[in-house]
Amino acid sequence: MKRRIRMGMVGGGPGAFIGPVHRLAAEMDREIELVAGAFSSDAARSIAGGAAYGIGPDRSYPSLDAMLVAERDRADGIEMVVIATPNRHHLTAARAALEAGIAVMCDKPLTATLEEARTLEGVVARAGLPFGVTYTYAGYPLVREAKARIAAGALGTIRKLVVEYPQGWLAGEAVGKQAAWRVDPASAGIGGCIADIGVHAFHLAEFVSGLKLVKLLADLGSVVPGRALDDDCQILLRFDNGARGVLLASQISVGERNGLRLRIYGDKAGLDWRQEEPNSLWLSHADGRSELIRAGDPGLSPAALQASRTPGGHPEGYLEAFANLYRDFARLLRGEAAPLLPGLADGLRGMAFIDTAVRASRENAGWVDFTG
Amino acid sequence: MKRRIRMGMVGGGPGAFIGPVHRLAAEMDREIELVAGAFSSDAARSIAGGAAYGIGPDRSYPSLDAMLVAERDRADGIEMVVIATPNRHHLTAARAALEAGIAVMCDKPLTATLEEARTLEGVVARAGLPFGVTYTYAGYPLVREAKARIAAGALGTIRKLVVEYPQGWLAGEAVGKQAAWRVDPASAGIGGCIADIGVHAFHLAEFVSGLKLVKLLADLGSVVPGRALDDDCQILLRFDNGARGVLLASQISVGERNGLRLRIYGDKAGLDWRQEEPNSLWLSHADGRSELIRAGDPGLSPAALQASRTPGGHPEGYLEAFANLYRDFARLLRGEAAPLLPGLADGLRGMAFIDTAVRASRENAGWVDFTG
Amino acid sequence: MKRRIRMGMVGGGPGAFIGPVHRLAAEMDREIELVAGAFSSDAARSIAGGAAYGIGPDRSYPSLDAMLVAERDRADGIEMVVIATPNRHHLTAARAALEAGIAVMCDKPLTATLEEARTLEGVVARAGLPFGVTYTYAGYPLVREAKARIAAGALGTIRKLVVEYPQGWLAGEAVGKQAAWRVDPASAGIGGCIADIGVHAFHLAEFVSGLKLVKLLADLGSVVPGRALDDDCQILLRFDNGARGVLLASQISVGERNGLRLRIYGDKAGLDWRQEEPNSLWLSHADGRSELIRAGDPGLSPAALQASRTPGGHPEGYLEAFANLYRDFARLLRGEAAPLLPGLADGLRGMAFIDTAVRASRENAGWVDFTG
Amino acid sequence: MKRRIRMGMVGGGPGAFIGPVHRLAAEMDREIELVAGAFSSDAARSIAGGAAYGIGPDRSYPSLDAMLVAERDRADGIEMVVIATPNRHHLTAARAALEAGIAVMCDKPLTATLEEARTLEGVVARAGLPFGVTYTYAGYPLVREAKARIAAGALGTIRKLVVEYPQGWLAGEAVGKQAAWRVDPASAGIGGCIADIGVHAFHLAEFVSGLKLVKLLADLGSVVPGRALDDDCQILLRFDNGARGVLLASQISVGERNGLRLRIYGDKAGLDWRQEEPNSLWLSHADGRSELIRAGDPGLSPAALQASRTPGGHPEGYLEAFANLYRDFARLLRGEAAPLLPGLADGLRGMAFIDTAVRASRENAGWVDFTG
Repeated sequence: MKRRIRMGMVGGGPGAFIGPVHRLAAEMDREIELVAGAFSSDAARSIAGGAAYGIGPDRSYPSLDAMLVAERDRADGIEMVVIATPNRHHLTAARAALEAGIAVMCDKPLTATLEEARTLEGVVARAGLPFGVTYTYAGYPLVREAKARIAAGALGTIRKLVVEYPQGWLAGEAVGKQAAWRVDPASAGIGGCIADIGVHAFHLAEFVSGLKLVKLLADLGSVVPGRALDDDCQILLRFDNGARGVLLASQISVGERNGLRLRIYGDKAGLDWRQEEPNSLWLSHADGRSELIRAGDPGLSPAALQASRTPGGHPEGYLEAFANLYRDFARLLRGEAAPLLPGLADGLRGMAFIDTAVRASRENAGWVDFTG
Repeated sequence: MKRRIRMGMVGGGPGAFIGPVHRLAAEMDREIELVAGAFSSDAARSIAGGAAYGIGPDRSYPSLDAMLVAERDRADGIEMVVIATPNRHHLTAARAALEAGIAVMCDKPLTATLEEARTLEGVVARAGLPFGVTYTYAGYPLVREAKARIAAGALGTIRKLVVEYPQGWLAGEAVGKQAAWRVDPASAGIGGCIADIGVHAFHLAEFVSGLKLVKLLADLGSVVPGRALDDDCQILLRFDNGARGVLLASQISVGERNGLRLRIYGDKAGLDWRQEEPNSLWLSHADGRSELIRAGDPGLSPAALQASRTPGGHPEGYLEAFANLYRDFARLLRGEAAPLLPGLADGLRGMAFIDTAVRASRENAGWVDFTG
Repeated sequence: MKRRIRMGMVGGGPGAFIGPVHRLAAEMDREIELVAGAFSSDAARSIAGGAAYGIGPDRSYPSLDAMLVAERDRADGIEMVVIATPNRHHLTAARAALEAGIAVMCDKPLTATLEEARTLEGVVARAGLPFGVTYTYAGYPLVREAKARIAAGALGTIRKLVVEYPQGWLAGEAVGKQAAWRVDPASAGIGGCIADIGVHAFHLAEFVSGLKLVKLLADLGSVVPGRALDDDCQILLRFDNGARGVLLASQISVGERNGLRLRIYGDKAGLDWRQEEPNSLWLSHADGRSELIRAGDPGLSPAALQASRTPGGHPEGYLEAFANLYRDFARLLRGEAAPLLPGLADGLRGMAFIDTAVRASRENAGWVDFTG
Repeated sequence: MKRRIRMGMVGGGPGAFIGPVHRLAAEMDREIELVAGAFSSDAARSIAGGAAYGIGPDRSYPSLDAMLVAERDRADGIEMVVIATPNRHHLTAARAALEAGIAVMCDKPLTATLEEARTLEGVVARAGLPFGVTYTYAGYPLVREAKARIAAGALGTIRKLVVEYPQGWLAGEAVGKQAAWRVDPASAGIGGCIADIGVHAFHLAEFVSGLKLVKLLADLGSVVPGRALDDDCQILLRFDNGARGVLLASQISVGERNGLRLRIYGDKAGLDWRQEEPNSLWLSHADGRSELIRAGDPGLSPAALQASRTPGGHPEGYLEAFANLYRDFARLLRGEAAPLLPGLADGLRGMAFIDTAVRASRENAGWVDFTG
């Protein structure tokens, strides 16, 4: 029988969207339990935040440092933290936790800047502790199926990749806490849309295809008047095997909710997956056959079946995908392998992508090398 | 801060599909915690079952009675049970729990026979304790949205209702534990497909429409050679406002996974919802306008918004729908109202539906009154 | 080089929906040409009708008889007629044409009553001339593909068939010429919805499955207050191989346009086709594989490929399906075989279906034999 | 009553795909009739080609010049020609016809090179005759609806445009006549994929949005080994109102048939149209409402309703869209206005797009001005 791993949260206080998602995802499979948190730097708000999760005031701390100190002295103290703050706090929080010997699950993007990411790289290396990055979409069963099929050669040689991530919720003035910090360079870092969702698309493309980006040409825009950061990204791609591609990410595409979609074309077949209907994966062959693959179907790869909790026809969604990352993280903490969990290298690579694209676009640099 | 309600499970041992779903759903929102179980009548299997949930052998009991006795003596003893056994055990288990003062969440159908259901009705009445029935699909946000819109008059007078629930997984020989008990009258009761999924469709139709069935004409078949219970149901319906309808349920519809779908047509508009893509609800108006409503969208009814954990575009699914029933049940246990949670009356009505349809079909009785 | 067959039209004058469709479909493949017509029994309206088709007043006759007499004397006189009138004129028109030695393409349903249909049967037999019935949906390439696959055994033994045809356009008062005659027994005959669209669904089911209906149980309703004919049909079916089924047809299903859909389930696979997206056919196998077949794809059956004019991805629709029936009719006139063209027997069988269902429902007769 | 316009065809002989489409589209509405052709430069093949259309050997000419001479002397001679040859013959054929006083409908792209297009511009100007270009997709009813809604302000200020046109049929070696000339610079001109389908996407984007392209950045690739022309295009766009965009066109996207899709996002709403299901148009509003608009629905714009031949639910497709262009052309020939028909200016603009993109990509020129 497995003992549940005790988790503390940094951020995720009142008004947060992603904090409750982390809690739910972490606990879904009974491997992890949220027991403490530094939910806000305001003591009263942290207590209120904790209460919403069912955490008592005694373990709802006003700071990560306070949490680390207090929990260290408990027999049932936390064994990991999740960092669910705005980007600018990621490095500080991760460093503090890791240096206190606590494993870290960190929201994406890894940090606010590439420089911070490189600093964090050293911290992680020195700590030698599990470190995960919640590129959520890597947790979907059919994303893992797609990766497995490509690895097994189902597409032949990959030639073309189209990944897009349109949203519309920031098409107007940024209203509310969730919107506000994302369009503020002081909180978000150098990237707006590209750091919020473009980096998801980038990770998904490399994760599923198994390819590595080697060149890019970025066209980032700030469409909403007065916006300091990018809110619409059009990026041309070239991968290490010569494959061509394009990445589109937008937060001003009115009417779109969360339209992440990935299409990959090889010389033998093409595939298509859409996050809003995540239980369907299309595989279309050069001979004209089109297959619809549904999550939970018998005959899927072990990676996909292990990531499903229900049989085909009983739809799972975003929360279950997220929970699959936590299940992987628990494996790491138990000393097992979790090769599909995005880690520090993926986070770092994402920051390099953001940094390279923002600079290349700002300088209208045309094609630039991407060294990751 | 809410204290978690302590739950015991009856059934749901090794090999079960629905036990882990109950566990996950009950715990999703941190209001309930599975702490004990009588997972099997075989002591060793119960312990193995418990271990899979993270429950120790001390609280993995060989029988419900043993659990009730042992837990009563604990300060942290169970406050509710979920009954996740084959149908034939529902009455016995529910009675034992209720008579021990323990609230009950019961899987559907309520019991194995209508007689048992009527017996249980008395037991529940005497106990005066919360009693829920997991008609899962009543937990979907957009099902609740549909119900709210109809109640608000969006469809005008309802005239026609089509509810269908095709599956294909029992089209061949019944293989495995899940299939075996469902086709065995000794475990399942008098209904096969109708009791397993037809009753879901029936509940959904009444739940969303707000109408009550008053007549039916049933055509149930056992398509697979040698099958004792029905595996394909075609039932004509008449509702209390005169509306016409049809209910189709099938477990021999090869290629279908879990295709529950509900269409309701009024004189002003029609709606359409499909379980396999549960985050979309169609509303089409007499003037030709067709609207797509997505779960989590702003502007939905409070009932739908409260049943969503994520904003639009972040799909939720079957497990979250199921969890919404548990969230409702927790409200009951805390003394709050939970008007959308299916209860004893719904369970009883479902049994009457099964009983009436099976008998009417067997006797080729044509239209028969349905008194519920 | 083929000479075009000269066609006259009966009906289809000003305000008609189906007349222009017949013209266009007949002429699409350059095998037939509309050259004359008795477009209305009002001489001026017939001339106006003709003008809309590009037919001069000299060949726009005030009656079929006038057309038959005048055209017989022309070297370039008509060789076939299409009957596109309300149902009550079908018998009279068909008889006159056939007895004048002119082949007939007749709109569905065959006649206004079964008795008329039987009378027509004798007329056709005596005439020995080509006779077609425009069950339009039998002309779709993927309907023919479905038929071919079933004939080749792709589904195994057929067990279950669901055919539905919801529309919403008659949910309110019948407004306009098109609506008015369809709800008037004097023009339409004994059937409303069942004769207008139910018969399409019935033909499609038998056409694709290759099965023959042997029993039915009909529940027809007149939902709109004051309506004399049925506007909503729910019919249970039993086929000659024992397969079960249901046919739903409705003209009061608000929000539905022309939602004809056919699902057939065998013991090896199931298929699904929808008229509103007619270029897709789903084939789902017992082993869990789901295939999407698109019209025009290489690898389809000869029957489907011959019925497509464009390669996959260039959608064809209702008019092309209709034209395929005319192409078949031209083959008959040229002395070739056209086994897929619905003929007198299909029309007669449709009338028997309407007659049997209307009577069985009126008498609440339960299951009745269908002898065709 | 309208007299049919007499049309001659250039090209479209045995083995052609687009010739029969032109014939069918031109004749669909009875306004135009194909009566002659120079179907091939091989006399025998021209006669065979004519026979397939039902044209006699006397009017199946071995050259356009022969046709122009012979038809000029007939009382019933041709009044227009359609040019359906490979691109390299467009200029020569159009010039000959126009100089002979014959109106021209020309397949796209306008010519093989921009220089030719400019030459043709002068020819058309001097001739003063109707000249149309078959950008087919401009004929779809819902494309015209989209254009009308945008013109009426439904989207507010347009900010972003994504147009894509993936196909997979040239992913392998170019097999067959259709494929062969498209990948051969001698027949196709300087553009491969961009000239064959990219130009369609370009026209559609400007046609619907009402915007004009002012800058582009092109990334064209020849993916299939040994291919001389581009087969995959990724082009970043900037429009005259500052809107951003991207155009993707590909003929190596395995599994895609003819996936033209246009999305346009304004500050008030976004729209989405897909050629493979052309009877649906999505309009999604900033307030979260999503509407599905279907072709033929009441309430659409006059432009869309006039372009539909059937009511909603009776799908029309590619051939009807094509026929709408011919209906427009017939209006021109009758001296009426046809503002939606693409003409010389659209054709010229398309050639400038091809030329600019091919050169910019070849020179890796980054952003370049597009002067049209």
